[in-house]
Amino acid sequence: MTKSFYPPLRTLMGPGPSDVSPRVLAALSRPTIGHLDPEFIRMMDEVKEMLQYAFKTSSPLTMPISAPGSAGMEACFVNLVEPGDKVIVCQNGVFGGRMKENVERFGGIAIMVEDEWGTPVDPAKVEAAFAANSDVKLLAFVHAETSTGVLSDAKSLCQIAQNNGALTIVDTVTSLGGSELDVEGWGIDAVYSGTQKCLSCPPGISPVSFSQRAVEVIEQRESKTPSWFLDQKLVMGYWGGGAKRAYHHTAPVNSLYAFHESLVMLEEEGLENAWARHQFHHSALRAGLEAMGIGFLVEEAYRLPQLNSVFVPEGVDEAEVRSKLLANYNLEIGAGLGALAGKVWRIGLMGSACNKQNVLLCLSALENTLSAMGANITKDRAIAAAEAVYSS
Amino acid sequence: MTKSFYPPLRTLMGPGPSDVSPRVLAALSRPTIGHLDPEFIRMMDEVKEMLQYAFKTSSPLTMPISAPGSAGMEACFVNLVEPGDKVIVCQNGVFGGRMKENVERFGGIAIMVEDEWGTPVDPAKVEAAFAANSDVKLLAFVHAETSTGVLSDAKSLCQIAQNNGALTIVDTVTSLGGSELDVEGWGIDAVYSGTQKCLSCPPGISPVSFSQRAVEVIEQRESKTPSWFLDQKLVMGYWGGGAKRAYHHTAPVNSLYAFHESLVMLEEEGLENAWARHQFHHSALRAGLEAMGIGFLVEEAYRLPQLNSVFVPEGVDEAEVRSKLLANYNLEIGAGLGALAGKVWRIGLMGSACNKQNVLLCLSALENTLSAMGANITKDRAIAAAEAVYSS
Repeated sequence: MTKSFYPPLRTLMGPGPSDVSPRVLAALSRPTIGHLDPEFIRMMDEVKEMLQYAFKTSSPLTMPISAPGSAGMEACFVNLVEPGDKVIVCQNGVFGGRMKENVERFGGIAIMVEDEWGTPVDPAKVEAAFAANSDVKLLAFVHAETSTGVLSDAKSLCQIAQNNGALTIVDTVTSLGGSELDVEGWGIDAVYSGTQKCLSCPPGISPVSFSQRAVEVIEQRESKTPSWFLDQKLVMGYWGGGAKRAYHHTAPVNSLYAFHESLVMLEEEGLENAWARHQFHHSALRAGLEAMGIGFLVEEAYRLPQLNSVFVPEGVDEAEVRSKLLANYNLEIGAGLGALAGKVWRIGLMGSACNKQNVLLCLSALENTLSAMGANITKDRAIAAAEAVYSS
Repeated sequence: MTKSFYPPLRTLMGPGPSDVSPRVLAALSRPTIGHLDPEFIRMMDEVKEMLQYAFKTSSPLTMPISAPGSAGMEACFVNLVEPGDKVIVCQNGVFGGRMKENVERFGGIAIMVEDEWGTPVDPAKVEAAFAANSDVKLLAFVHAETSTGVLSDAKSLCQIAQNNGALTIVDTVTSLGGSELDVEGWGIDAVYSGTQKCLSCPPGISPVSFSQRAVEVIEQRESKTPSWFLDQKLVMGYWGGGAKRAYHHTAPVNSLYAFHESLVMLEEEGLENAWARHQFHHSALRAGLEAMGIGFLVEEAYRLPQLNSVFVPEGVDEAEVRSKLLANYNLEIGAGLGALAGKVWRIGLMGSACNKQNVLLCLSALENTLSAMGANITKDRAIAAAEAVYSS
């Protein structure tokens, strides 16, 4: 007979999921009600309003997709890409590659703009791609690359797309709630995110928002969207229908309670304060890591505060370090992906996990573990360096 | 400033979600861990094993899709249907119509077999459809139609498909855990379900299982699956990969804790006992409703115990009754859909909600509400009739 599952109590400082606040966990376990219950519909409306605040948009087509971030990505591409459409896809990490897959699976033509992993999307290359190709329908790029920890200049990239009459699809999975994002101000047409990063909710929901321009393009599609579940015309009838909601699918009731609570917490803190908090604790973590002699993959100007890709000291088996952190400190940090596997760790400071206790735990656990393994690091400096930031 | 959301405490006797056990709610709110954590991977393996038990299959390709039942449906169709494929789709309610949408959106040709809403799929019509069409790749039908409360003879329908060399896709959203289902014994090739019906978990996850034959067809596809999120070749690498799991998407960690706990509870009760419990409480509810003079839409032989479609007494505004039940008793029952809107209610007895307290609450609340509205019903008999079943 299988036993109930009791998870260990971890500190989550990987690339996500991040630590979930007890308030959000408590909301998650409130009694389930019907997805057509008037009280649930009232809650859905509040979720939409708070999500508009988080994305900085007034678009009524702002809602959570009932599935993880990869489904949010797919919701954007499957609705906006029709067979034969040209899409400029910027790739500077794992998730640009997934965007290419999306374009091609829906019959589009992906025009790739490649930048090295660990560097941002180069606006000049995007300009050149537009100059070399006519009738480009969409520009797609990742705002905050979770695989490398790089922030790209979304505002400038959107401006280039607008100058060329193209729509934009922007991945903000790791930026929403952690880095400046202004969906309406920057003119983003389709944006998706995840709940398990800087919003500190369990994974499983993907907030999205579409501009009026994007909605018009969706409404004028020549072919039926090759997905029933993600057909935004149908989803809008459910989420956008007010009192006259048309049944589409059964919403994940409890997951939405949790998402609601995480948005209440964001509203209480204030969006700009949340961005500043991520930057502040990043500074302390950086000071500690650098004092230890551990360097960053990404140049400072493009570095994400919430996702720190740092070099593994030479001669150290990075997987062994992660295993020891988990076994001895219940601390999770992330491995490198793709070409960066074995070379970097990804240390997350996202949402609720972005706090002083976690910064100090991570620094001391890492220092002790690396010292015991005989790694060439500078000892006994990291905590003081971080504390200096905190008392500055 | 938006306030935290505290849902009312409802009794859920609609078409789903059903009441969620406090054990499952408690599991849902356990601390989040990483989706690649060794402890989480161990839990995933237990979920797979218990799901094999629930579906009665030994297929290793048995796993939960990280999205609601409609995505589970789509996972079956998007992987198995290629452009030009002929699919016989049986429609005797809402969900057969959604299957047709799925077939056509993926470029298949849907050959419709229609039966009246409230009646089961007629095997003779399916035989005739196979006789009239060559090279049919798939037969798709709904085992337990949530929109009407009808059970179709899945075993016979699968046999017809096998005799004609076709694969089967079967919707068991409302049957899993509530009515006899034998995926391997009946030779079902692709099956999907939901968590929010007879498994009494919150909505948001869709268990699926594929036979070896189905997997071979998926592996030999000529075109790439037009979905990245639901591409079963990729999902299998994640759920089927054992220790060497390939990252695909971030699993909905907490929702899977809850699903795990609901499967532990099913194992503890025993699958056959769960089926018998649904039948037993249905008998009591039926006795009470009939004593009140309320009749059933579906003939007894095809009636789902967990979803009771009953006629609204003449002259009664059915929506007003449902509003009063919700306002005065915190009791949710379901409305009729499509052609049955306004004519029937759908009373669910699913999973944890399938118990004596709920049966008695529903009968007395309905009787009091209808009496107060002056409906022509027989009074003061329903509870005694139900109690007679319980003491028999």
